[in-house]
Amino acid sequence: MLGEFELIARYFAPLAADAPGAFGLTDDGAVLAGDGGPARVITLDTLLAGTHYLPQDPADLVARKALRVNLSDLAAMGARPEGYLLSLALAPEVPESWVDGFARGLSADQAHYGVALLGGDTTRTSGPTAISVTAIGTADAVLRRSGARVGDRVYVSGTIGDAALGLAVARGVAGDAGDPDSRALAARYRLPQPRVALGAALCERGLASAAIDISDGLIADLGHICRQSGVAADLALPRIPLSTAVQRRVEMDAAHLRTALTGGDDYELVFTAPPENADALAALARDLDLPLTGIGEVVPGGEVILRDPEGRPMTFDHAGWTHF
Amino acid sequence: MLGEFELIARYFAPLAADAPGAFGLTDDGAVLAGDGGPARVITLDTLLAGTHYLPQDPADLVARKALRVNLSDLAAMGARPEGYLLSLALAPEVPESWVDGFARGLSADQAHYGVALLGGDTTRTSGPTAISVTAIGTADAVLRRSGARVGDRVYVSGTIGDAALGLAVARGVAGDAGDPDSRALAARYRLPQPRVALGAALCERGLASAAIDISDGLIADLGHICRQSGVAADLALPRIPLSTAVQRRVEMDAAHLRTALTGGDDYELVFTAPPENADALAALARDLDLPLTGIGEVVPGGEVILRDPEGRPMTFDHAGWTHF
Repeated sequence: MLGEFELIARYFAPLAADAPGAFGLTDDGAVLAGDGGPARVITLDTLLAGTHYLPQDPADLVARKALRVNLSDLAAMGARPEGYLLSLALAPEVPESWVDGFARGLSADQAHYGVALLGGDTTRTSGPTAISVTAIGTADAVLRRSGARVGDRVYVSGTIGDAALGLAVARGVAGDAGDPDSRALAARYRLPQPRVALGAALCERGLASAAIDISDGLIADLGHICRQSGVAADLALPRIPLSTAVQRRVEMDAAHLRTALTGGDDYELVFTAPPENADALAALARDLDLPLTGIGEVVPGGEVILRDPEGRPMTFDHAGWTHF
Repeated sequence: MLGEFELIARYFAPLAADAPGAFGLTDDGAVLAGDGGPARVITLDTLLAGTHYLPQDPADLVARKALRVNLSDLAAMGARPEGYLLSLALAPEVPESWVDGFARGLSADQAHYGVALLGGDTTRTSGPTAISVTAIGTADAVLRRSGARVGDRVYVSGTIGDAALGLAVARGVAGDAGDPDSRALAARYRLPQPRVALGAALCERGLASAAIDISDGLIADLGHICRQSGVAADLALPRIPLSTAVQRRVEMDAAHLRTALTGGDDYELVFTAPPENADALAALARDLDLPLTGIGEVVPGGEVILRDPEGRPMTFDHAGWTHF
């Protein structure tokens, strides 16, 4: 059986060929044809118990994660969220108290992000609980994955790898789960912080040439920008922002570095911008109190190159990072 | 555990309180705030293998059903469909050939209904295959469930009960599956005919006061109109349109009548209209080559009353229809 991206390319992208706003299914969301006003951006993602969250995760956090990963898709396109639809298929063992907690989580995030529930459905399933969310937002002009140009710089928001190591902690494969570092990492996995204000500001201030949210890992998601833009990204490992908690884990075991750079669920934005926007981006970082770190340059080619402190390109196999 | 409607009322309707276009989650879809142009209507429904379709159903028909039940929700609000998003969570045993057939089914219906795929995602699940579709349409003014007024007439499109008896046939509990009647009924279950042109025309010609699509059965869905409108519906059993295939099944076993009237998946529209619109509705039925049958009147009260040929109110328990 083909993987997700091959299935989409072979069977579903042709179904989107006639819809200009579907962008060939290559972006984080679709744009509905406008009526002169701002564009409407729409996205649909499903979370499955056991696959996208742990069944024992608190219901309110699961709800907020389901909403937030969709808000992150809107953020990647520079859209401000306005509402969402929810389709909830509940596993047989899920009690009403879980639904209560789930709804309380949604309520908290609705207040935080200024969105409301618009519709959807509730069903029972014999399988794992499935949570589908459609989020809708507006943008005057959307950010795409295809706009990166040679000479642009590559930026990333926040820090990278916390969620992937947090998942490892939650699974008991990355050390003691009780220390403060571990709790902080696990919290980043359980509850993403979608960069809604950043995405909207990048769009409204016209600062970024391309953007994507990091759901499948920095290297893989930046690879999507490279493929869609027909460019390569040349990154310097020492410039990639790691939290102190991740740094300490990497010092304990270098294999954690691969997890941090290729693991998913960061929900930071990685974006490209022309060098003349550096000062404006520094000002934006101050406005948002959010680090925006330049980690490399856009160069000719087609892939993501990561260089070690000596400037040598690195690659990795399933065992971890190695040199060419 | 509460049922679907109680869960929605208790936990999810409060989350929609601040969104006027969510209508308190009482309608078939939500309306996005417009920018002066036509309203955008949006709906999200999930189909689960084993619950909403039979795992052995052909993949192309499953795909078309998943799309069509959402187009039916748009039709109930009078919206013309423009596109859809698809979230597909595939069970482990699903082969690539199934995805191929699924995509071919979507392609056929895209051409038929003039819609395109806009986005979504594809994942694997350890449980039954789950198919979530978000459909988007436009309407100058939407049909609601709350507009029925005392004195209006109750109409239904097409015939009622074919899909419910078709499901019974497919499950082997309603006689021989090989005769032409049975094949016709099973086809109605497997592939709904959403009344897209009817819904749009009712809306554009201003003929209906309230509408809903019949997914949970004529009596239950008309009950939603009654509750939302604060009225009762007084129906005459002999006026309810039944196909000859359903009539023959009912003659064989009167218990099939309950199945026909309370079973789901008809995806016809039941709607109310002032009596002065009767001629215009007759003209519309001719235009669409689709029967629109008056089955009763809107009266004061709060429920659906069904009268036998002698005018006596009928009710039913789990064993079937009985008289008061």
